Amino acid sequence: MSKTPLFLRALAKEAVEKPPVWFMRQAGRSLPEYRELRAKHEFLEVCKTPELACEVTMQPIRRFGYDASIVFADILLICEAMGMDLTFGKGMGPQLSPPIRTKEDVARLASKVDPEEKLGYVGKACEAIVAELPSSVPLIGFAGAPFTVACYMVEGAGSKHFLEIKKMMNGAPEIFSALLDKLVDNTIDYLRMQVAAGCRAVQIFDTWAGELSPMDLERFAVEPARRILHALADLNVPTIYFARGCAASLDIVKKAGADAYGLDWRARIDQAWPQLGDVAIQGNLDPACLHAPLSVIKEKTRRVLDEVKGKPGHIFNLGHGILPSTPIASVEAVLEEIRG
Amino acid sequence: MSKTPLFLRALAKEAVEKPPVWFMRQAGRSLPEYRELRAKHEFLEVCKTPELACEVTMQPIRRFGYDASIVFADILLICEAMGMDLTFGKGMGPQLSPPIRTKEDVARLASKVDPEEKLGYVGKACEAIVAELPSSVPLIGFAGAPFTVACYMVEGAGSKHFLEIKKMMNGAPEIFSALLDKLVDNTIDYLRMQVAAGCRAVQIFDTWAGELSPMDLERFAVEPARRILHALADLNVPTIYFARGCAASLDIVKKAGADAYGLDWRARIDQAWPQLGDVAIQGNLDPACLHAPLSVIKEKTRRVLDEVKGKPGHIFNLGHGILPSTPIASVEAVLEEIRG
Repeated sequence: MSKTPLFLRALAKEAVEKPPVWFMRQAGRSLPEYRELRAKHEFLEVCKTPELACEVTMQPIRRFGYDASIVFADILLICEAMGMDLTFGKGMGPQLSPPIRTKEDVARLASKVDPEEKLGYVGKACEAIVAELPSSVPLIGFAGAPFTVACYMVEGAGSKHFLEIKKMMNGAPEIFSALLDKLVDNTIDYLRMQVAAGCRAVQIFDTWAGELSPMDLERFAVEPARRILHALADLNVPTIYFARGCAASLDIVKKAGADAYGLDWRARIDQAWPQLGDVAIQGNLDPACLHAPLSVIKEKTRRVLDEVKGKPGHIFNLGHGILPSTPIASVEAVLEEIRG
Repeated sequence: MSKTPLFLRALAKEAVEKPPVWFMRQAGRSLPEYRELRAKHEFLEVCKTPELACEVTMQPIRRFGYDASIVFADILLICEAMGMDLTFGKGMGPQLSPPIRTKEDVARLASKVDPEEKLGYVGKACEAIVAELPSSVPLIGFAGAPFTVACYMVEGAGSKHFLEIKKMMNGAPEIFSALLDKLVDNTIDYLRMQVAAGCRAVQIFDTWAGELSPMDLERFAVEPARRILHALADLNVPTIYFARGCAASLDIVKKAGADAYGLDWRARIDQAWPQLGDVAIQGNLDPACLHAPLSVIKEKTRRVLDEVKGKPGHIFNLGHGILPSTPIASVEAVLEEIRG
């Protein structure tokens, strides 16, 4: 038996007995033990208190024995570190203020955040988690992709039509590029800190990349992500890029140069993988189907495995974050189907 | 000069001097004359009063001289005709109540709506519009695709994760299929009425098809749409199927058997068209880019035309409905770039 954890072997495209499994957002609102903890602590308090972040990161590992762990944090913490005001109102989603709209707004953002000073709590959480994790379960560090984080910074919150960011992108691309540049630089340092704190892989989440036309996708989403991943090359940790909603543009997505790519549930693995080339892939069960009867969940899990056809380099995951209302038994059904 | 309108010649894939242009949601909130009329009349009142529906349908034709007209209506009117309560609260989007969740809920919906009796106002609006339109501008009839309409019926409103409909789809596919069957049958009669009232093409809007995995897309979205289009074949009007967010699954989308397909802004026309085969295509400028400076709008319009490379069968349109805040000058810039 190799001592390298299953997750890392799959990321390295080694043949494995069964695919490793982890779920995006596995730590959080879908777990009763998380909701219990949250009844006593605000979301940002959990993020910023290493013991609490460690505890909620460990909860899904203890309960389900996932093959990888991901530090409990938020992709927008970096915006706060760069000087914005970040709040999470009850049922409102994140709010960033004031929204970034002008050259001056971008200029006011920190160019070079000291991650230890401003985001050190994430590093400390990573250290605490690594100390607690079984050696077979690696910790994944993560960040939002510059485009996706910029969406929130410019819109000031979640968005339906992404009008403000597209206004900036089309009307003042030099301002938008300056914003992306700052995010690229700060994200590199932030991820380096996470790796120094013990993360053995990093994932970049580009949740809103699918809102872009192919040309904008390449210029404003994939290229900044590529620069981050390129700058981490000397660390020798495998990298994962998840550009949601981009199944039609994988020839562009793959220019990020990651070791692995996340696929959402609109992608067909057997078609998508050859387009991405000699990389590992991660995905792609529709998180909504975890509300189906257990037999259907197992059937849909099997279908993902069937599309993979045992090709080395598959990490089982959802096509997007697990939904808060997901029953525990649904997760167990997926794991049972994969692990037998 | 042929007497067949430009739009219909392009739909028939005839070589044309320049592509016809129309914009999804061209009648409505982006026009000041519409907002003025709406200050005096509720949305549903406009839909249900043929003179008002005719007036707002004509507004964009008068202002911009679009090459096609589309009757002012809503994809959810058919739900009301089938027995649901439909309201549009201020800034809330459509509400359908009570939401359809059970076999009994589906059973209560009308199987065979008499379109003249329940939706006759749409037919009368079509007749009034045709009487007023210049002969060079054909009227398009339309309906929501069964899957997309069912989303609203089951969720009861717009949705983010489409959890309720996916619960039904996965947990009770026979109930969901019964709902789709009713929608297919009623939509056929509804569209036949629109054609009898003078529409010279029909479009089916599948706004939420992109939320589905490829297998579900085929079974629950494309196949019901195909049945509708197939049932209209004897009418000899060209048909357009717009499945938004499906650029990665055009091999599935094309099974709808339409004469033309709408493409959203995530599709690359030069890649997408060959996948769809010997059909006309419609699209695909990002509606958000109509908030860019005019020179950028023209450049992006030109890029769409460049991707088409003059191939016969292209109808210029947006990749989704025009946004309410779109400046008039932006639309003019697109038309100027296309028409010279």
